[in-house]
Amino acid sequence: MSERPQPPVADAVITELVVCTTCRPEGASRDAPAAGATLFEAVQHAQFDLPAEALRRVRVRGQACMSACGRACTVALQAPGKPSYLFGDLQPDAATARDALRCAAMHAEAADGQLLRNQRPERLRNGILAKLPPHGAQATG
Amino acid sequence: MSERPQPPVADAVITELVVCTTCRPEGASRDAPAAGATLFEAVQHAQFDLPAEALRRVRVRGQACMSACGRACTVALQAPGKPSYLFGDLQPDAATARDALRCAAMHAEAADGQLLRNQRPERLRNGILAKLPPHGAQATG
Repeated sequence: MSERPQPPVADAVITELVVCTTCRPEGASRDAPAAGATLFEAVQHAQFDLPAEALRRVRVRGQACMSACGRACTVALQAPGKPSYLFGDLQPDAATARDALRCAAMHAEAADGQLLRNQRPERLRNGILAKLPPHGAQATG
Repeated sequence: MSERPQPPVADAVITELVVCTTCRPEGASRDAPAAGATLFEAVQHAQFDLPAEALRRVRVRGQACMSACGRACTVALQAPGKPSYLFGDLQPDAATARDALRCAAMHAEAADGQLLRNQRPERLRNGILAKLPPHGAQATG
């Protein structure tokens, strides 16, 4: 019996889950680590809680500031040819981290990258800050 | 004498200026046209006020909703391999339209797509809502 060949990941569209590492909720102490750094850490850990197969097309990346400082914590999802999403008002905890990864996997698996609100994981159902259309030159649909 | 050949635009990076056409400031009447539609119209007209050369790498595009409804009017700038920007709290008038086009031209001409606040045209100096990094697979820098 031969194994069914898997398409190489390089051929697939990779969704980036970008976590702002400098996000601090208004009034948060500057002496403590930034909430964004805490969330980034949580997302990195949470990758080991989810099936590797689900995250095959997901890459996690930290970014110092995404200019949505009034709505900390924030994460973005983006992939060539798909809409980009930015979510804010997130708690820097394990539940948010898992839901952000699950949502990134949904974005990666959906050919059009559309994320309907009522299908998104709970922590990313509210707090959408922006949805940018795919760049025209990249749009496939 | 031979003319100096211009590189074809298809080879250049095109910056999209995306104008939300459904933006309505809070409390605005639903009986009047959406402020976003007014801004989109103004941007289309303003293209004729600027030198064609400056807009060679700029494409204008209307988009029904970018999910930043609380910060109407909104426009986005995006190009493959460059950071995406979203601006809000914009007035739907000719001055905003011209500044948005000028800012799009700056984004197109800058190899790294970076837009420093104090170099941006006046109407886009405040009201930045988001800056997403270029997708890792596309980043050139």
